[in-house]
Amino acid sequence: MLGDIILILSGKEVALKVREEVKKECAKFVALSSHKPTLAVVLVGDDPASATYVASKTKVCEELGFVHQDYKLEANIEEDVLLNLINQLNKDANVDAILVQLPLPSHMNERKIIKQIRAEKDVDGLHVTNLGSLLSEEEGFVPCTPAGILKILEYYNIETSGKNVTVVGRSNIVGKPTAALLMQKGNDATVTVCHSRTKNLKEATLNADILIAAIGKANFITDDMVNESCIVIDVGINRVDDDSRKKGYRLVGDVDFENVEKKCKAITPVPGGVGPMTIAQLMVNTLLAAQRHYNKRS
Amino acid sequence: MLGDIILILSGKEVALKVREEVKKECAKFVALSSHKPTLAVVLVGDDPASATYVASKTKVCEELGFVHQDYKLEANIEEDVLLNLINQLNKDANVDAILVQLPLPSHMNERKIIKQIRAEKDVDGLHVTNLGSLLSEEEGFVPCTPAGILKILEYYNIETSGKNVTVVGRSNIVGKPTAALLMQKGNDATVTVCHSRTKNLKEATLNADILIAAIGKANFITDDMVNESCIVIDVGINRVDDDSRKKGYRLVGDVDFENVEKKCKAITPVPGGVGPMTIAQLMVNTLLAAQRHYNKRS
Repeated sequence: MLGDIILILSGKEVALKVREEVKKECAKFVALSSHKPTLAVVLVGDDPASATYVASKTKVCEELGFVHQDYKLEANIEEDVLLNLINQLNKDANVDAILVQLPLPSHMNERKIIKQIRAEKDVDGLHVTNLGSLLSEEEGFVPCTPAGILKILEYYNIETSGKNVTVVGRSNIVGKPTAALLMQKGNDATVTVCHSRTKNLKEATLNADILIAAIGKANFITDDMVNESCIVIDVGINRVDDDSRKKGYRLVGDVDFENVEKKCKAITPVPGGVGPMTIAQLMVNTLLAAQRHYNKRS
Repeated sequence: MLGDIILILSGKEVALKVREEVKKECAKFVALSSHKPTLAVVLVGDDPASATYVASKTKVCEELGFVHQDYKLEANIEEDVLLNLINQLNKDANVDAILVQLPLPSHMNERKIIKQIRAEKDVDGLHVTNLGSLLSEEEGFVPCTPAGILKILEYYNIETSGKNVTVVGRSNIVGKPTAALLMQKGNDATVTVCHSRTKNLKEATLNADILIAAIGKANFITDDMVNESCIVIDVGINRVDDDSRKKGYRLVGDVDFENVEKKCKAITPVPGGVGPMTIAQLMVNTLLAAQRHYNKRS
């Protein structure tokens, strides 16, 4: 592709714009309702990556004029303690939205915990009711990462209609809801979902107009797997050892960025790609939860 | 494929076996619980095709030892009348399962009606909660047609793991839940969902090891769209004029059976393919609803 410019899709830039819009909308909402959108953030245990994500989320809450309530529980608590906290937050009329930071300690049933959150407050969009609404194209909350991916594509005027989208990974958080979102009417992509059991993965990725990598393995997608007109969306956030960094590691995606970016048409970097969008969409959903909550009461 | 035998996948035969198993399980359940699985069947209006489906379903209920309660409402009733009936059936402890025959008259909001059914009684598996459970691989009710398709494949020892499955059609009743089911862990297919906006449909269908046609257009899939090792599952049930028949029409699928069956490896006929499986799976789900209902009480 000599002479062609490889486009870096800056999720950071899109997220900035989304946050600005949410901030404006939030101010209008507060003026109308005399209530600040309120997000309860629940962190269980002391995983440093989780703590970092939670800190980013609460920081953005403050930037946008939201209230955040922080709950920090010990890693070894009984599941019931967390379920009771969720029940209390479900009932609290001042709380519009509840976020339980994942992953949870291994002795807890993650799906059961998420199911306990009232769907109307589940701004992560991972409750079965919200996933079912996504699949059947009804009102609910779209999970933050899939929604963020779509917004990056929209921002850069990348058409999805009729395009071959290959999603690599079938997680409940990213792969499957992203597939469901992109095949919806209006988005209209022809979606293929690949995973660890897929044979001829390379055939499927080479066929993609838009390739979404959500496997959770560093540098898994290599340049031989990507065609020259492909738009590559890298959802992975993996730590790899790096002695040259202060922390001893650096973050890389699921895509071998260095080599793939030389070949493909456009690509999201890691960091600064999908990650910031996920947080921005959490804010979109939180404001939406507050607005719906208010409309229901008034 | 000279010398090779084209396999006709008889849904009728599989359905017979499923119904026999359900009948046995039902007898055991009745002996244990002193309660017969009870399905409330709601028919709105007088569409002859819908009336025929309902008659088939209630007939199978009787064959298997289930109780059916029949509700017939006029086509022009207010939506609220139907919603109230559903509420009453939701509360009725004797009713294990509720089926509202689709399609509903056009003045009604079908998704709203289905949402009103308690998910635990929604044996069609179309409630958002059940669709979300399907997507996130949790316990719920799998919609009858997708479950029936999977059972045909299992009966004929057709492996899905790692196979390319192309689903043509993205309806909430068939296309999307079938895709979600086949990509689940354990089924492990690589699934592509195509629809009216898909470009290069033929490329996607030719790439299929298993092709699932659920478009609702008579003879839409032609022999040039199918490869010689393809397993073809035809979900369509379309009426086409036929003066040689008493009724003036005959039923055909979405696949041009006459020509495709000469080329592909195996195919479901219409009628006698997916149709009987849909009813059989409704019975599987109804028994399951009764069992879960009983286990909850005891």
